[in-house]
Amino acid sequence: MGKCLTYKILENHLLSGKLVPGEEIAIKVDQTLTQDSTGTMVYLQLEAMDIEEIKTELSVAYIDHNTLQTGFENADDHAFIQSVAEKYDIIFSKPGNGICHQLHLESFSIPGKTLLGSDSHTPTSGGMGLLAIGTGGLDVAAAMASGSYYMKVPKVLNIHLTGKLKPWVSAKDVILYILKTLTVKGGVGKVVEYSGDGLKGLSLTDRATITNMGAELGATTSVFPSDAITYDFLKAQGREKDWVELSADADAEYHESIEVDLSEISTMAAKPHSPDNVDSIKAIGNIAVDQVLIGSCTNSSYKDLMKAAAILKGKKVHPNVSLGISPGSSKILKMLADNGTLSTFIAAGARILECSCGPCIGMGQSPKNNAVSLRTFNRNFCGRSGTKNADVYLVSPETAAISAIKGSLEDPASLGPDIVIQEPALYDQNDNYFIYGNNPDVSISMGPNIQPFPTSKALAGSLEGKVLLKTGDNITTDDIMPSNAKLLPYRSNIPYLSRYCFSGIDEGFGERCKKNDGGFILGGENYGQGSSREHAALVPLYLGVKAVIAKSFARIHKGNLINSGIIPLEFVDSSDYDAIDVLDNCIIKDLQDSLQQGAFMEIYNQTKDTVIKARFTGSQRDIDILLTGGYLNYIKASLEESK
Amino acid sequence: MGKCLTYKILENHLLSGKLVPGEEIAIKVDQTLTQDSTGTMVYLQLEAMDIEEIKTELSVAYIDHNTLQTGFENADDHAFIQSVAEKYDIIFSKPGNGICHQLHLESFSIPGKTLLGSDSHTPTSGGMGLLAIGTGGLDVAAAMASGSYYMKVPKVLNIHLTGKLKPWVSAKDVILYILKTLTVKGGVGKVVEYSGDGLKGLSLTDRATITNMGAELGATTSVFPSDAITYDFLKAQGREKDWVELSADADAEYHESIEVDLSEISTMAAKPHSPDNVDSIKAIGNIAVDQVLIGSCTNSSYKDLMKAAAILKGKKVHPNVSLGISPGSSKILKMLADNGTLSTFIAAGARILECSCGPCIGMGQSPKNNAVSLRTFNRNFCGRSGTKNADVYLVSPETAAISAIKGSLEDPASLGPDIVIQEPALYDQNDNYFIYGNNPDVSISMGPNIQPFPTSKALAGSLEGKVLLKTGDNITTDDIMPSNAKLLPYRSNIPYLSRYCFSGIDEGFGERCKKNDGGFILGGENYGQGSSREHAALVPLYLGVKAVIAKSFARIHKGNLINSGIIPLEFVDSSDYDAIDVLDNCIIKDLQDSLQQGAFMEIYNQTKDTVIKARFTGSQRDIDILLTGGYLNYIKASLEESK
Repeated sequence: MGKCLTYKILENHLLSGKLVPGEEIAIKVDQTLTQDSTGTMVYLQLEAMDIEEIKTELSVAYIDHNTLQTGFENADDHAFIQSVAEKYDIIFSKPGNGICHQLHLESFSIPGKTLLGSDSHTPTSGGMGLLAIGTGGLDVAAAMASGSYYMKVPKVLNIHLTGKLKPWVSAKDVILYILKTLTVKGGVGKVVEYSGDGLKGLSLTDRATITNMGAELGATTSVFPSDAITYDFLKAQGREKDWVELSADADAEYHESIEVDLSEISTMAAKPHSPDNVDSIKAIGNIAVDQVLIGSCTNSSYKDLMKAAAILKGKKVHPNVSLGISPGSSKILKMLADNGTLSTFIAAGARILECSCGPCIGMGQSPKNNAVSLRTFNRNFCGRSGTKNADVYLVSPETAAISAIKGSLEDPASLGPDIVIQEPALYDQNDNYFIYGNNPDVSISMGPNIQPFPTSKALAGSLEGKVLLKTGDNITTDDIMPSNAKLLPYRSNIPYLSRYCFSGIDEGFGERCKKNDGGFILGGENYGQGSSREHAALVPLYLGVKAVIAKSFARIHKGNLINSGIIPLEFVDSSDYDAIDVLDNCIIKDLQDSLQQGAFMEIYNQTKDTVIKARFTGSQRDIDILLTGGYLNYIKASLEESK
Repeated sequence: MGKCLTYKILENHLLSGKLVPGEEIAIKVDQTLTQDSTGTMVYLQLEAMDIEEIKTELSVAYIDHNTLQTGFENADDHAFIQSVAEKYDIIFSKPGNGICHQLHLESFSIPGKTLLGSDSHTPTSGGMGLLAIGTGGLDVAAAMASGSYYMKVPKVLNIHLTGKLKPWVSAKDVILYILKTLTVKGGVGKVVEYSGDGLKGLSLTDRATITNMGAELGATTSVFPSDAITYDFLKAQGREKDWVELSADADAEYHESIEVDLSEISTMAAKPHSPDNVDSIKAIGNIAVDQVLIGSCTNSSYKDLMKAAAILKGKKVHPNVSLGISPGSSKILKMLADNGTLSTFIAAGARILECSCGPCIGMGQSPKNNAVSLRTFNRNFCGRSGTKNADVYLVSPETAAISAIKGSLEDPASLGPDIVIQEPALYDQNDNYFIYGNNPDVSISMGPNIQPFPTSKALAGSLEGKVLLKTGDNITTDDIMPSNAKLLPYRSNIPYLSRYCFSGIDEGFGERCKKNDGGFILGGENYGQGSSREHAALVPLYLGVKAVIAKSFARIHKGNLINSGIIPLEFVDSSDYDAIDVLDNCIIKDLQDSLQQGAFMEIYNQTKDTVIKARFTGSQRDIDILLTGGYLNYIKASLEESK
């Protein structure tokens, strides 16, 4: 049997381990990207690794999240990132340039390369045939320092595309359809690989829309072949030299396969409050709409905005609708200005927002209470808009545009014959928002919002502490470390964030940690689900949390706990959960001996004079990381060794 | 002797009283404007007046302040204002349309009319020959309800302009020069009226820049004649029918006169932290710059932005500079998009921000710590940028643009021959951001951020309470009710704001008010200076403050206290200030008898068993307002009476 594209790329980058699903491998990382809300921590960690130069072929530091700047914190962070970028020869993208994924696709993505990004929508570049993986910031820092990344070999799910999209049906409708089919858990532990004749009808940015929102499947990443359409896009960006042809073997083997007939897909929307709560526009009906937002890394390509504008041309936005446009990149904004399209948006009465992530990450444009908001974005989790009781629907730019005029959810098919947008033969070539240049001696700019991150110590002897919190099942990283427009500016300030740790569940948590000099957390099932935010581990570490004992863990958060040096332990007998209470004093003895793969360890509850059993499940490398006191200490030791 | 233009307009609008400086008169109000940060309170007050229709010829409700929308509050406020606008036939300007003053100049200002606005930069329309006055929100609500406004007759200060500006010297440099000459107190109690041959060289938007920033002189307003240049601007806006010629009589009498030779003015900057701390660019020297911002109601005209773009054309913004452009109106943004100018900004690497007040009012774009920020705005008070230790310099668009390229403060004269921008023969005619139409039966949208404002009760018998706070001299309205990006979204929520009343001075103030069921505040000299914010009276009223006893008061705040129904009292003997302490219990007996113009009243300090003397200075109408329980109750009674 032949090889799939995913395994071809992995094989080309394999540094250690075997390409067997579930096995741990190390791969060479060609490129990294960071954005600013995760980036300050990444570059603090990189600095702490004390390296002379980075090992990647290309690394880019984008500023796209914290661009509202309602206090000095953001600009301080930007200046810090810019100075570290200059020190390590990392390309710096100034605020105003646009969204990292859109920009990386335009300027730096190369088919067949590996890209590691500290943002969950890094898979966007998979639309160009990269293996592009979103991960925690420490992994990205380690990848820059070492050139490598450790991961479990994923299974590969093939989505075989046939047929051709109906008029007014777009790439967004395709990924919404796939989300409806596979659900938000359908991609867990897998790479989604696209193939088939249906590819011909999807432009490069269509493909990027699909791989971008593939993140919502829970997939490790998504990937498309690199073909003539890829070539045309790279040529239009003035980068045809970067093109290589790539595809799976004709007889490629996949772990799973499904077929999607594009001609059967209709216009869709994801209803509140999950990206997989998808239905057809027709089935949802003409609900009244208060806000429409077009943009984000999912849907702000040239074609997306041109098509929305074509619908808005000569029309007026409905009086009850606030229509916002946030272009994905300065290049696209410039092209729209030059060809009269921006003028069309303004003439219709649209709000022109800065090129950035903006409202997609809850930074601004929160709708009114109980609003219905249509967004071309990728996530509609409850409260993410900044308005807890708002109903957010995820739709295509076409659906967004027609609905903004009508004041209610509308099927663009009602517009008659489809409008075809030609891909530009040449994209704008301006790159004045990028700062290049290397100066190893630059002084690092450290504003007062940038606080040292906590580090763990090598584990030895025994662990002792009080139980600080006892949570229920399905605790999310949002529960552990809330994120919103008020807290996002403080991502580089763990001490500040620590005041809000678990604040929605137990306001006294932080105080209790301080009073007891840290301790343990008790969790239920699926502890740490949701966003990959490593702050949900770093902040508890700062507060002195030494171990989390839970019924079960969500995968990414468990990895982040290990990286931070906090031991994730599972009850051998779930009912022991009921036998421990808050403020019980617990002791784990002989840590180095008891922390063995799959083995049981004993936790002595001194308060109740009882013993319960728990176990650590992870690789030997994970155990080594914990014993060394977290991934940062571990990687520093490895880097030292390799010198 | 002939008449000055100011008195001609006042005479045309005189409803009662005599045109004698210092006398109280009532004038007919033709137009009103509100913005959203003061507007929600204005329209709550208007609603409370229980009128059938408004009495002004034209009233406009603009949304331009709270446009970041980092929570549901702003959109709730916008929806509330939109619904009240629909109820009372008030024109509604949607967010994204631009800044109230710029828009009012383009679309609604008519020479010779009176305009009352709940924003201190309302005098901008004085550039077109309106008598345009900024005032507290309750006055604007009362003007809509009654068609009239009470004021003290101002003196008139004539600034006679001669000569012609040197190359690269702009209207901004003129008003900076005047601020240097007259200081921020130079206009108090006066209208500044411009005349002379020098007028010929100033375009209409140049004049509006000068009248706009005339607010920083402390003037009631500033006014220019309406001449051929005014006609040309109105014609370019498609409004030549609105033009009338207006000027002072040739032998007009003024209370004061100064002459300004325009040819003697050089490029200027206001240094930190006051608009009158002005020096020439040359004298200040080439200080390094971190941020440059072009926009605001002062400097975002077509010419301003075209000129800045001409300087930036083909250049790249300095790597260490963040350059932001916030256009003043959607029309101008559209024109810049259409003629390629927006493209020039983007090509240079500028950040394109939404058309709104934005960073000028501290809503976003806060610079990094210790930054030097050049801004084409009107105020550089310490901390207004959102960054306490930033140094903000106020400059012209020309100075801003060249400095953004160089990375340091630079004189545009270094660019060689001046660039002349032609005024557009026709401005864009799009008005799709305005919502017209009247529906008296519309249901008023009231989100949870919109809380009832406090009202006072008719005063009778005696006042008794504890002293809640004893402040020093020169307490500002910022001290009383802080305003920043975090609090500005809550301007329609007095209960929320009350948590932060005096928070910079005494965090326990609010609690003490609650515990003691309100009471008295003791102030030093010049109590309540600074911004005209009526929240600095409404919030203490909400907290139960009954009277403020101070050594002296700032004029506008004293008026706001009276409007709110809080009695402003002055010590007869300043040294009595030292004889009262916090939590002393004080009693004022026989209030109705003792509240007499200029008469003394006795305050019995029960705790110390002493008596001190204080007096009320104000008009009989002021006393009537206080006895009726504030201006809202007073106007309701008058409206009832007139029915």
